[in-house]
Amino acid sequence: MPADRIEVFAPDGIGEVVEGTDLAALVAPYLADGDVVVVTSKVVSKAEGRVRVGDRDQAVLDETVRVVARRGPTRIVESRIGVVLAAAGVDASNVAPGSIVLLPEDPDASARRIRADLAARDGINVAVVVSDTAGRAWRHGQTDLAIGLAGMLPFESFEGRTDAYGNPLAVTAPAVADEVAGIAEVATGKLGHRPVTVVRGLSDRVLAPGEHGPGARALVRETGTDMFGLGSREAVVAALSGRDQDAFGAPATADDLARALTECGLPASPGDGRVTVAAQPDDLRIAVLAFAHAWRVVDDSGDSATVLVPLS
Amino acid sequence: MPADRIEVFAPDGIGEVVEGTDLAALVAPYLADGDVVVVTSKVVSKAEGRVRVGDRDQAVLDETVRVVARRGPTRIVESRIGVVLAAAGVDASNVAPGSIVLLPEDPDASARRIRADLAARDGINVAVVVSDTAGRAWRHGQTDLAIGLAGMLPFESFEGRTDAYGNPLAVTAPAVADEVAGIAEVATGKLGHRPVTVVRGLSDRVLAPGEHGPGARALVRETGTDMFGLGSREAVVAALSGRDQDAFGAPATADDLARALTECGLPASPGDGRVTVAAQPDDLRIAVLAFAHAWRVVDDSGDSATVLVPLS
Repeated sequence: MPADRIEVFAPDGIGEVVEGTDLAALVAPYLADGDVVVVTSKVVSKAEGRVRVGDRDQAVLDETVRVVARRGPTRIVESRIGVVLAAAGVDASNVAPGSIVLLPEDPDASARRIRADLAARDGINVAVVVSDTAGRAWRHGQTDLAIGLAGMLPFESFEGRTDAYGNPLAVTAPAVADEVAGIAEVATGKLGHRPVTVVRGLSDRVLAPGEHGPGARALVRETGTDMFGLGSREAVVAALSGRDQDAFGAPATADDLARALTECGLPASPGDGRVTVAAQPDDLRIAVLAFAHAWRVVDDSGDSATVLVPLS
Repeated sequence: MPADRIEVFAPDGIGEVVEGTDLAALVAPYLADGDVVVVTSKVVSKAEGRVRVGDRDQAVLDETVRVVARRGPTRIVESRIGVVLAAAGVDASNVAPGSIVLLPEDPDASARRIRADLAARDGINVAVVVSDTAGRAWRHGQTDLAIGLAGMLPFESFEGRTDAYGNPLAVTAPAVADEVAGIAEVATGKLGHRPVTVVRGLSDRVLAPGEHGPGARALVRETGTDMFGLGSREAVVAALSGRDQDAFGAPATADDLARALTECGLPASPGDGRVTVAAQPDDLRIAVLAFAHAWRVVDDSGDSATVLVPLS
């Protein structure tokens, strides 16, 4: 449902956040029932003691689950919390020089905690967004995203609904939580001490007290359903080395693979859990197509045909 | 600079937009000096006569510059205006059944036109964003983005500036125009006739009268500097067929390629504009690594070495 009027403001004068700072107490004075409060991951991390003194590069490695792409000094990775971003969210800005800040351990849990504290102590029902900054695959610049969320649904789902003309709106699911995090970035700026933004006018989106919703984790595409699980260059290198099979999704059946190979001009037949191709085993196309379907080339046929078996 | 308070509202009662509708006249009643007005690409397209009766699939093909990734019925493509999105922005929602809407020919020009009309006729200096909806590589759901822009810079650049601790903020460039388009989506909703959103409180970002800025085109990564110019699977297939060399960036020099191959356990030496590898020409790794550097395998050495020459 469209809102009548949304108001966004980033209060000035929020003090320094250190380990143990009570974030609910910090934000409560600015909030009213039905507000959405956006807190940067930076201050959540500081409050939760996620500041380290040490080597940034090592911290990035520690926080990385999977390297998605690398070019020059840039390293796009999947971080522990599932979010794909540069440097695994390890940040050396807005912190004392020489220190680094890691992402919160579980930003959805952080959001739920702040929301529950505000309900219990201050008697207000608000939604909480924990935001962080990320680049985009095809666009310059960064936007802020919701990496933690409680008390609001991450999406507005239009599935099964129709527009004013009666057309179905099947695939539309606006990521409202990300869009709210984005405008908070605009209100906050990056230079001052304004780590908290209040978004007022979305009370129809705030869930009932005690209902937290699925959290921001639901915004993250699962590895393997992801068409961009690797950069273009990295995908080719992975095909070479047999790494990162996940990026290619579920293995094909022998029938499917035989069909795919035949379509590519490599006549193939399935049988006995293997696929046999009437072509030289060193044909590059066989190896690459087989890999893309999670099969590998073996060569025990004893003649000029190629035999493929499932990878795992 | 952080704003004190941002107000966002999507006026109700905007009538149906058809070819020739004067969009500046349509939005003027809701605007004040210094506002940012976000107009959906849908109504800009309608006003500019970009509605067609015909086959959606054919229109998608016509509007596609490059297929980035494809899985099942989903086709992520680079559209004519450079923006990467599903179905090249061709849309069949919020239009009479059987009709389709193409993206505006040049959304930056559309934004400049609306801005200039509002200045000339109504004497107000506002920024204009033309918005459209796009998915994200690693996240579920969609957000609205700026595909056209006039009167505001697309980014806030912090390059060369420092945070409150004196740390440099070198790589941070928030894509403010996209974040503003996103909150407009929240205010607008998708079901009603609310194609216009007013964002008030950002007057310090609105450029001087007559200055339009670089437009939303500046938000689009150039092909070839893009680490995700192809989906993971498509990159492998492209490596196979020799298509889409662009995705791999600038060709390496013979020295660079020889070094890369040697690092991968394939001792290679450069010379005479070619690279010679002391390995079998059918080594899959040679072919794939060479491709990744825009070289191709030739085999005129007459023995068991492999010779590589630049692709172009």
